[in-house]
Amino acid sequence: MIIVLKQGTGSKAIKDITEKIEAQGVSISHFSDVKRDFLGVIGDTTGLDTHRIQARPEVEKIVRVEEPYKRANRKFHPENSEIQVGQETIGGHKLGIIAGPCSVESEEQIIRVAKQIKKAGANFLRGGAFKPRTSPYSFQGLELEGLRMLQAAKAETGLPIVTELMSVKWIDEFVDSVDMIQIGARNMQNFDLLKEVGKTNKPVLLKRGLSATYKEWLMSAEYIMSEGNENVILCERGIRTFETGTRNTLDIQAVPVIKKLSHLPIIVDPSHAGGMSYLVESGAKSGIVAGADGLMIEVHNDPENAWSDGEQCLTPDEFGLLMEKAQKLAEVEGRSVPLSTEVSTH
Amino acid sequence: MIIVLKQGTGSKAIKDITEKIEAQGVSISHFSDVKRDFLGVIGDTTGLDTHRIQARPEVEKIVRVEEPYKRANRKFHPENSEIQVGQETIGGHKLGIIAGPCSVESEEQIIRVAKQIKKAGANFLRGGAFKPRTSPYSFQGLELEGLRMLQAAKAETGLPIVTELMSVKWIDEFVDSVDMIQIGARNMQNFDLLKEVGKTNKPVLLKRGLSATYKEWLMSAEYIMSEGNENVILCERGIRTFETGTRNTLDIQAVPVIKKLSHLPIIVDPSHAGGMSYLVESGAKSGIVAGADGLMIEVHNDPENAWSDGEQCLTPDEFGLLMEKAQKLAEVEGRSVPLSTEVSTH
Amino acid sequence: MIIVLKQGTGSKAIKDITEKIEAQGVSISHFSDVKRDFLGVIGDTTGLDTHRIQARPEVEKIVRVEEPYKRANRKFHPENSEIQVGQETIGGHKLGIIAGPCSVESEEQIIRVAKQIKKAGANFLRGGAFKPRTSPYSFQGLELEGLRMLQAAKAETGLPIVTELMSVKWIDEFVDSVDMIQIGARNMQNFDLLKEVGKTNKPVLLKRGLSATYKEWLMSAEYIMSEGNENVILCERGIRTFETGTRNTLDIQAVPVIKKLSHLPIIVDPSHAGGMSYLVESGAKSGIVAGADGLMIEVHNDPENAWSDGEQCLTPDEFGLLMEKAQKLAEVEGRSVPLSTEVSTH
Amino acid sequence: MIIVLKQGTGSKAIKDITEKIEAQGVSISHFSDVKRDFLGVIGDTTGLDTHRIQARPEVEKIVRVEEPYKRANRKFHPENSEIQVGQETIGGHKLGIIAGPCSVESEEQIIRVAKQIKKAGANFLRGGAFKPRTSPYSFQGLELEGLRMLQAAKAETGLPIVTELMSVKWIDEFVDSVDMIQIGARNMQNFDLLKEVGKTNKPVLLKRGLSATYKEWLMSAEYIMSEGNENVILCERGIRTFETGTRNTLDIQAVPVIKKLSHLPIIVDPSHAGGMSYLVESGAKSGIVAGADGLMIEVHNDPENAWSDGEQCLTPDEFGLLMEKAQKLAEVEGRSVPLSTEVSTH
Repeated sequence: MIIVLKQGTGSKAIKDITEKIEAQGVSISHFSDVKRDFLGVIGDTTGLDTHRIQARPEVEKIVRVEEPYKRANRKFHPENSEIQVGQETIGGHKLGIIAGPCSVESEEQIIRVAKQIKKAGANFLRGGAFKPRTSPYSFQGLELEGLRMLQAAKAETGLPIVTELMSVKWIDEFVDSVDMIQIGARNMQNFDLLKEVGKTNKPVLLKRGLSATYKEWLMSAEYIMSEGNENVILCERGIRTFETGTRNTLDIQAVPVIKKLSHLPIIVDPSHAGGMSYLVESGAKSGIVAGADGLMIEVHNDPENAWSDGEQCLTPDEFGLLMEKAQKLAEVEGRSVPLSTEVSTH
Repeated sequence: MIIVLKQGTGSKAIKDITEKIEAQGVSISHFSDVKRDFLGVIGDTTGLDTHRIQARPEVEKIVRVEEPYKRANRKFHPENSEIQVGQETIGGHKLGIIAGPCSVESEEQIIRVAKQIKKAGANFLRGGAFKPRTSPYSFQGLELEGLRMLQAAKAETGLPIVTELMSVKWIDEFVDSVDMIQIGARNMQNFDLLKEVGKTNKPVLLKRGLSATYKEWLMSAEYIMSEGNENVILCERGIRTFETGTRNTLDIQAVPVIKKLSHLPIIVDPSHAGGMSYLVESGAKSGIVAGADGLMIEVHNDPENAWSDGEQCLTPDEFGLLMEKAQKLAEVEGRSVPLSTEVSTH
Repeated sequence: MIIVLKQGTGSKAIKDITEKIEAQGVSISHFSDVKRDFLGVIGDTTGLDTHRIQARPEVEKIVRVEEPYKRANRKFHPENSEIQVGQETIGGHKLGIIAGPCSVESEEQIIRVAKQIKKAGANFLRGGAFKPRTSPYSFQGLELEGLRMLQAAKAETGLPIVTELMSVKWIDEFVDSVDMIQIGARNMQNFDLLKEVGKTNKPVLLKRGLSATYKEWLMSAEYIMSEGNENVILCERGIRTFETGTRNTLDIQAVPVIKKLSHLPIIVDPSHAGGMSYLVESGAKSGIVAGADGLMIEVHNDPENAWSDGEQCLTPDEFGLLMEKAQKLAEVEGRSVPLSTEVSTH
Repeated sequence: MIIVLKQGTGSKAIKDITEKIEAQGVSISHFSDVKRDFLGVIGDTTGLDTHRIQARPEVEKIVRVEEPYKRANRKFHPENSEIQVGQETIGGHKLGIIAGPCSVESEEQIIRVAKQIKKAGANFLRGGAFKPRTSPYSFQGLELEGLRMLQAAKAETGLPIVTELMSVKWIDEFVDSVDMIQIGARNMQNFDLLKEVGKTNKPVLLKRGLSATYKEWLMSAEYIMSEGNENVILCERGIRTFETGTRNTLDIQAVPVIKKLSHLPIIVDPSHAGGMSYLVESGAKSGIVAGADGLMIEVHNDPENAWSDGEQCLTPDEFGLLMEKAQKLAEVEGRSVPLSTEVSTH
């Protein structure tokens, strides 16, 4: 961290600010050129409050050279992290393919979809039991009953379950029932919830907030990791921009940027990004070639009658075709997909 | 709500979709021009899931003419709402002036600031006890101890207390200790928290999310109100845009837009919007002339040594000067400020 | 400018990069702390190409401490600039009030509106002769005939004329006919056009681009000024953000930010920002109290039949009422408006 | 187009507005449900000014069902357009690969790079002769001398030339010298320039503006096409969002959206989108699998010493490796790249 002082800052003021900052456990190296003085901060600056330093009248500008995250930082962990989720792994050679309906609607439905997506090539089942809806008058999910149905689908298919947690109230049920806890975009900076899932050892799928920067996203991962749970997987799901021709703008560059900054796995959710089913294929394929470690895709047996987000769902058949294409691209990229043998031979 | 059907939709499909939608408790009126068919939906469409209708293959476009919120909607409540907060009111003739430090740092500090801001013209005390910080390594607030200090300051000055709640865990303590519960920008769509504060009868200050549209913001108010708590006050605090020369972009147009759409009071927080103390005065004054019902201003006795957000704080003296200007503008606007007599006479 | 080098950069590489940069006419001061080396660049860095330096493999980060604009910079010109436009001045005590229709429609119309706005308190007449329209099929303006009509209105009222130039082709006609050349938001980075108006000595009203940062905006002013024309007035007219409830987001903080960075006058256009007439009053009043040097307001004698942008126009009567309010606010701010005596006495 | 009238609009007002709109050459069909009246507009609504209709007091909302562009619209031209550019074609089976330096720096340089990129697999040469630079003090390009050097490189290699036109002043020289005229992002709504290139028959590469919506982008294509030049190729080059970790956000969804709305070819420029060389590969590969018709990539023989944008350039070797990967992905997608035989055999 470099602190640029305003022109004309006197030596007394420099001494004073130096002492204040050094009192926080770092040391200061003082430079100057013809016009200005600079303070280089040496040591662990992660806990230093730059807003507080910025408030001093003699400070012109603060430049952080170091990233403010440690556990999520690739510098201190150069190898890719591979996260064990149930019997599967995300972050290694094989892509993680998470598929399923937006909402769990019935036991019969979730079991049917689970079988179909497994056959088509998914290795994780998703399905919303608790739904974050913009309107209080919209369907809010089957809640605990939905969790039970997901478990029934897992019992039938063996697929690990991924579903969203919206409240600390249900954390014990989630730890007992699911294989990966999803934190949704709207809760990416619900720090209370992040800390609580950080105290468990369940893998956490941390979706990017609609207007979260890469740094804020990694800081939210750091919240979870700083509580002891290092099993964090990031999910790019589109950001909010001026463009209204799509629901959100899929930020495909997030994949290489996060790969550079962090060792954590990152997957791509093209269903929520575009918000329309015709955009899913290109988004999914872009994710694979950009280096993502997996995909999250909404699949519904009957999209027209889905209880939520039907317009962005693929049918199981469409999903199967996408998986065949994904397999070819994964091969070009030196990766693999979890296609079942039935599918890969037809 | 009008549903525009794709060209060439047959009469059987029209009959089918009409029945499906009418099954949700509304009625359908069918029009057509030379090229297309349209379905007008008559009845209460608030609970209708447009995503679900959109997912049908024959639907080209859905146009909502009605707003999806009811309790927050000015149409059904033409008069401005005035919300009682402690002994004060927000939404009437007198502006609500909420001031105080970003963080509560000590009992001595919060009492001193409370006295200073009261003298300068505030009628509410703010101060963070639980702090939402981007980094887990930054100061997270004095928590329950901070709440206790706020109460001590209230005991000394009589000022009602406003402070942020981040977790449902502390809701009982907040109901017992504070006069208005603040929901921060990052939690604007923490629906679990919204529902819980909706079950209390405490006034709620609902800050706008960094990338929340007016409609989403009002839907979050609706979450609180639909649980029975109609004491909601909105707070514009800047939105995230491409511009990085200020922390956020103060959306001053939010004031007249919200006033048109809703009967709820709205205040402006220029401190968080700009993120720099030199931007507070113009933002505060703009808020008053744009029609806001109050202001939320960060004031710290010693900004350079503030534990958080020091660079955006005013000193008590600066705040006093601002209040004098606010008084003159409020008069032009036919409003008043809660200036104490000591100040208004000098 | 400080160049932060990557950790482990050797002394040979440091010598090499130092020589390359010094060859561009600046000198380098070399610092280092325990971890890193830094190069401080001393001298006029305005012409230095940071992208070129950034491309070197040993460079981690470049921090510009100095602004890249000179002539527009308040540091080198601490006093506010006052720009003479016809017989009027913008940037001094009296606010510049520019009003008139979006498009010039007929001589009779523009003369009538000119008389009405003059009576209501404007001291400049606006009216589009060349119109930048999103669609090639929309009305593109009366072009040279429109210029002639504006001159007729000036002859009748004495009001200086402000109108938009879209093509270098018409620059001579504009220099002959108008008092201030407007460069529209879509042309803010039409560098060819900026250079050409920079070669004239006509005052230029430079609107902010829809997604232009403060710095880019001032750099566009610098383009004009660097050609010799220092008569630049900036105009905030709303930026493009995620919010679609208004046409654009009026960035009221632009006023104090520009005032801090530059000596150039800045005015506010609330008509284009909000895109709806009910938003004009609050935007205009906010502009005045935020410190703007003037306003640009669309006024049409018959908004329902306006040939363009009718939904954001005020009627002459509405404009008159706004000017009365503006007068009171200007007084509180220690400024004045150019209200005619007829109006100020009723 | 459907016009939703306000509740309570009387039959006289409906008759009046109907007549006014029908006077513009369309016909009106009148519907009503229990609450409201609607007017369906039948006929060619492309030239209808919705702002003007919106300005009428009885209008609640206007819903355009038809797109406002005709010539660019896939509805009226279902087949993909293939554009002849020199001896090459863009929009067909073979991808168009445009490569070269940001700026032309010398004849020797541009010839060397042209040979290298041709060998590595490009079929078009790019290079800036006229440069749009944010600062008037930055290098502005070699201008006409640069054009001459590009022609020399074409004479040596046979590669068609693509370069940016910033001023109508040089249009004849461009028509004589180049194979495709590029309109840069900052000039996407320089309507004067669009009309002028529309009067030539040169292929035009139309880059998307930094904050241009899909619709605005296609309307700018329509400006060119409506003048008679239908040889328009679109280029997605990143949009401006809140994220500052990359220069711009590559909107990969633009590819399928534009393919759906329009028959025009679209290519992707990952160099300008990310602004850093490490982001080029993933962006380029995403473009191919998303369905783009080509790529535009900055390649410089000596990025560290490039005169502009060096940090985002690939070296010729890096470009060669990228082309090998591109070839494999193109094959999976059923497309081909213009790889020379030397390269494809090693």
